[in-house]
Amino acid sequence: MKRLTKEDLKGWKTKREDDTSEQLASVKEIIRRVRAEGDTAVRTYTETFDGASLDDYRVTSEEMSDAYESISQKYIDVIQEAAINIRRFHEKQLPTSWFDTQENGTMLGQKYTSLDRAGVYVPGGTAAYPSSVMMNIIPAQVAGVKRIVMVTPPGPDGQVPIGVLATAQILGVTEIYKVGGAQAIAALAYGTETVPKVDKITGPGNIFVALAKKEVFGDVDIDMIAGPSEIAVLCDDSARAGEVAADLLSQAEHDERSSSICITTSERIAGEVEEEVEQQLKGLPRREIAEKSIHTYGGIIVTATMEKAVEAVNELAPEHLEVLTENPYEQLGAIRHAGAIFLGPYSSEPVGDYFAGPNHVLPTSGTARFSSPLNVHDFMKKSSVISYSEAAWKENVDKIASFARLEDLEGHARAIEKRKERLDD
Amino acid sequence: MKRLTKEDLKGWKTKREDDTSEQLASVKEIIRRVRAEGDTAVRTYTETFDGASLDDYRVTSEEMSDAYESISQKYIDVIQEAAINIRRFHEKQLPTSWFDTQENGTMLGQKYTSLDRAGVYVPGGTAAYPSSVMMNIIPAQVAGVKRIVMVTPPGPDGQVPIGVLATAQILGVTEIYKVGGAQAIAALAYGTETVPKVDKITGPGNIFVALAKKEVFGDVDIDMIAGPSEIAVLCDDSARAGEVAADLLSQAEHDERSSSICITTSERIAGEVEEEVEQQLKGLPRREIAEKSIHTYGGIIVTATMEKAVEAVNELAPEHLEVLTENPYEQLGAIRHAGAIFLGPYSSEPVGDYFAGPNHVLPTSGTARFSSPLNVHDFMKKSSVISYSEAAWKENVDKIASFARLEDLEGHARAIEKRKERLDD
Repeated sequence: MKRLTKEDLKGWKTKREDDTSEQLASVKEIIRRVRAEGDTAVRTYTETFDGASLDDYRVTSEEMSDAYESISQKYIDVIQEAAINIRRFHEKQLPTSWFDTQENGTMLGQKYTSLDRAGVYVPGGTAAYPSSVMMNIIPAQVAGVKRIVMVTPPGPDGQVPIGVLATAQILGVTEIYKVGGAQAIAALAYGTETVPKVDKITGPGNIFVALAKKEVFGDVDIDMIAGPSEIAVLCDDSARAGEVAADLLSQAEHDERSSSICITTSERIAGEVEEEVEQQLKGLPRREIAEKSIHTYGGIIVTATMEKAVEAVNELAPEHLEVLTENPYEQLGAIRHAGAIFLGPYSSEPVGDYFAGPNHVLPTSGTARFSSPLNVHDFMKKSSVISYSEAAWKENVDKIASFARLEDLEGHARAIEKRKERLDD
Repeated sequence: MKRLTKEDLKGWKTKREDDTSEQLASVKEIIRRVRAEGDTAVRTYTETFDGASLDDYRVTSEEMSDAYESISQKYIDVIQEAAINIRRFHEKQLPTSWFDTQENGTMLGQKYTSLDRAGVYVPGGTAAYPSSVMMNIIPAQVAGVKRIVMVTPPGPDGQVPIGVLATAQILGVTEIYKVGGAQAIAALAYGTETVPKVDKITGPGNIFVALAKKEVFGDVDIDMIAGPSEIAVLCDDSARAGEVAADLLSQAEHDERSSSICITTSERIAGEVEEEVEQQLKGLPRREIAEKSIHTYGGIIVTATMEKAVEAVNELAPEHLEVLTENPYEQLGAIRHAGAIFLGPYSSEPVGDYFAGPNHVLPTSGTARFSSPLNVHDFMKKSSVISYSEAAWKENVDKIASFARLEDLEGHARAIEKRKERLDD
């Protein structure tokens, strides 16, 4: 692993910028055609890109129950237990509408409502993780979204992965379409004869999905564009190098472009982690991926103090952060930017991937500086509520009208003054 | 005004789609150059687009206090009072970090942190509203953003509007740059020698600003792309047509593309509103704008029942909604999509533009279906916190490892299992 300095972290994210103009051009064309031709375009693209020829591309309830029947009880049990944990955590996020009354009779408030319709993208092939289904669907369900639509690309045989279908069945999702790529995003954003137009699209995907989501943003809402997975492990002399290395590799095995960084105050740990990583790499089934990832985007930073180590963490703003220090709660307050923070030796990152309850859809590429894990608020929105009393109006009408005139908006002034006619009645 | 049906509202937003590919090309070029050349590019574009040649484009503290000195005490008073109201409302939005402990020693939680840096765009020229300054700056201040940067385009004389500067001075903003357009957005998104890179950009702007914001989205966060202003007035027979008409016109005067819709159960009111609108238009200084707007994008819908009227409101998802009915609180629950909801006859829309407290930066063009008024949460983000206890780990390690193996992620399984070595110690 490379030795890095805090300075190196500043450019860390930008090292992975690719030219995507070619893919963008085809994404735009796909969106244009799906908007214009609806299902016809969706079917054509599914044939071209997925090699599947589908007349009816909605998953049937038979396919769902067949998938459920075909997986083991052990699998069902762990999904169900994880779902309970995830639901419990997300229920804590539920906001409440509030109002603030004033003695003069005015009420000001904020009303929460759920979205009417949400669309969840689930990738196909090797990235078809049942956990992705849970992490996207459950927050939408907890928020109270009325209609949840899932899309996922079919294989050439027209089938979608059994694990994904079974998980959807367990969660009670009933509306799934076999469509992927930019054509799925376009269908969700603008609607077709078959797929309903939704209000928000979430879920990970390849570069075409990511570009399409950015393209339709504004017409519908989207979650953040996800980059490769990342982990940072903040540790002092009390950590065990073997655990640090294993946790770094657990992210490195995701993707050749995943990033795994160890930030430590201990030169000894740094050396041991380097050795452990090489050692543990040897027996890893996804060794090739992990090796490439950890040698290109991995690194170790040794700082003089814990304060400087935390500064480095904040500079990086990692997706996952483990704190393996003597007393991790002591660092929690100074950590400003991280998607999920795992405290102490038993909070190995995979604990959060499936099971503990918090969402695994997290801000990547330093976007933890300004964005959050996927959560119930992502499937709700607020409306301001203003109920001005007669007394409040009387007290303020002249001030408001004069402010409007200062901004040269006479119509605004007249609107509020129009109520003066009531005084004459 | 046109008579519309509920059906008409479905396509309402899409009627305003323009081809912006030409502007987008120049926006991309501006962003590319600002990223590559920093201040040099900013100065060149300011000279080209604003006609101002500025060596140092940061507003000095002298300019700030001069602006403050030059405005009337009455103006200062009303800004200060409005600022108090706005601050009070937004303080109610402040979230708290929470945690949930389990008896086995596990702690799961959600930690809120403010953004480090926010950038606020304030338009120049006729759209330079002091209220925009308040509505963008105050939520960021309440959220606790450490560094707030304002940008606004200079006139050819190198000056920025006094009202904007004075308002900033009153609010305690100290970092303002004279730069506008796409070059301002690029400078905030990527930083120059002078302008710091920020984490989020908010504030309204022209088409170049809007396109630039969409372009940099992902590298930084942005608020929603604002469209023309809109109002819907939901009313029954108890409303006064003169007030309805005045309020419709208060939005119509903003922009030729503003939309003002009256949705009523009363044929009588519908007729009277039409007459009143024509009558009141006559004396309006911004008549030309308001007339064009109300005749093109304005309309009246008469429905058979209040239920159907509310359905029409939800279909439209208006930025501003006034409820002028006998008992407006009765409709509040069924209204799902609206940026701000004004209840009763004294809550004329301009009450919310400056003064009452809720934010006037609201979702337009039907985006109230999935987005919210600008608020304190926009300047904060969450981190999940996971502190698994030894007992929780012991109880779940095998389940989590087997789930990881089902998803073919052996490295994940090994990471959590690595802790088993502790049992041997």
